[in-house]
Amino acid sequence: MKIAIIGGTGPEGTGLGFRWAASGHEVIIGSRKAEKGERVAAELLAERPDLAISGTDNETAVAQCEVAVLAVPYAAQAATLESIQEHLMGKLLITVVAPTGEKKTRALRLDSGLSAAEEAQQQLGDKVRVVAAFQNIGAHNLSDLDYELDCDVLVCGQKAADKEVAIQLAQDAGLRGVNAGGLVNAGVVEGLASLLIFVNVKYKVKDAGIRITGIG
Amino acid sequence: MKIAIIGGTGPEGTGLGFRWAASGHEVIIGSRKAEKGERVAAELLAERPDLAISGTDNETAVAQCEVAVLAVPYAAQAATLESIQEHLMGKLLITVVAPTGEKKTRALRLDSGLSAAEEAQQQLGDKVRVVAAFQNIGAHNLSDLDYELDCDVLVCGQKAADKEVAIQLAQDAGLRGVNAGGLVNAGVVEGLASLLIFVNVKYKVKDAGIRITGIG
Repeated sequence: MKIAIIGGTGPEGTGLGFRWAASGHEVIIGSRKAEKGERVAAELLAERPDLAISGTDNETAVAQCEVAVLAVPYAAQAATLESIQEHLMGKLLITVVAPTGEKKTRALRLDSGLSAAEEAQQQLGDKVRVVAAFQNIGAHNLSDLDYELDCDVLVCGQKAADKEVAIQLAQDAGLRGVNAGGLVNAGVVEGLASLLIFVNVKYKVKDAGIRITGIG
Repeated sequence: MKIAIIGGTGPEGTGLGFRWAASGHEVIIGSRKAEKGERVAAELLAERPDLAISGTDNETAVAQCEVAVLAVPYAAQAATLESIQEHLMGKLLITVVAPTGEKKTRALRLDSGLSAAEEAQQQLGDKVRVVAAFQNIGAHNLSDLDYELDCDVLVCGQKAADKEVAIQLAQDAGLRGVNAGGLVNAGVVEGLASLLIFVNVKYKVKDAGIRITGIG
């Protein structure tokens, strides 16, 4: 699958992209500036020249992709989506965005009363299918392909088929994806990111995550 | 510790009370009607006559307790708190309430924009310390003392000492309690309850729960 990572030069976007490329996907690292996307792609290729990784600007990346992954800070979400909206039409957008405020350990309530994923869906309209996933994985160690990640990925979205894509991508990154309901549940998953940052600080660890138990 | 369970005749309140009594606490099962509290206490005592369990109405239960546990449906929260408020003054209130709407699988946004735990704190004022915990344990099997519960308890509250009490009570019930931040994070924990109900339905299980990973 041809995956564009919007804001792919941050640690989470880069780490997920590297893992997806290693599992056989074609990955395009997008960035505001094409040179930055190219540079990060070159760094990953230096480590694994056999993989299909390229870098460019966000718009070009999205224009080429089958599935787009949004990995920008929340503060940049609305403007970034506006700049790539036309190239997203008809596509699946998986957003990993989890808004955190100044106090990152406190779940943030957005002024809209919605989750960041719902805001994205509202902004993009019905022609783009938004799925929320990967909010709760630490970026720490993500780019180490041999590192075994001990956490699940909660996947929220409206259509089962789209959630299946995200669940498969979780598996391809070495994680288990769990169907966690409609997009209305994305706020819980986004809030968990702040809660897990609190746990990291309080328990002096770097990689607190969650697992769903009882589903075998 | 002398624990009053407000709304202690529902499956979660009864199950937690039974486990706490089995670990050596003195448990008072409260209900709107004293006879119902007495009846449930008698049922538990029939199974384990050695335990310190009694039943009465909610007000009498709270008047006698050191720590109160709120285990009523969200719809009954405000009225119940009003009826016991004077007896709660100066005490710790642990709330297990997780609001669910008509569609229980969808995280519910309260009109206040707050969590149920924050609403409780607002209603009760500074003289009562509210801690949110036990929102994400299935009531199923809770009253089976031999059943090993495979989940963690997220604990949110303002004071570390109060959260320590809840974390100890989690341990006494056979669970691990995790400090999950201030009361502002309670909305995440309450929303997780709906998300886990979705998982139960979707994966055809009864006991989906969560574990925090990466904290040893």
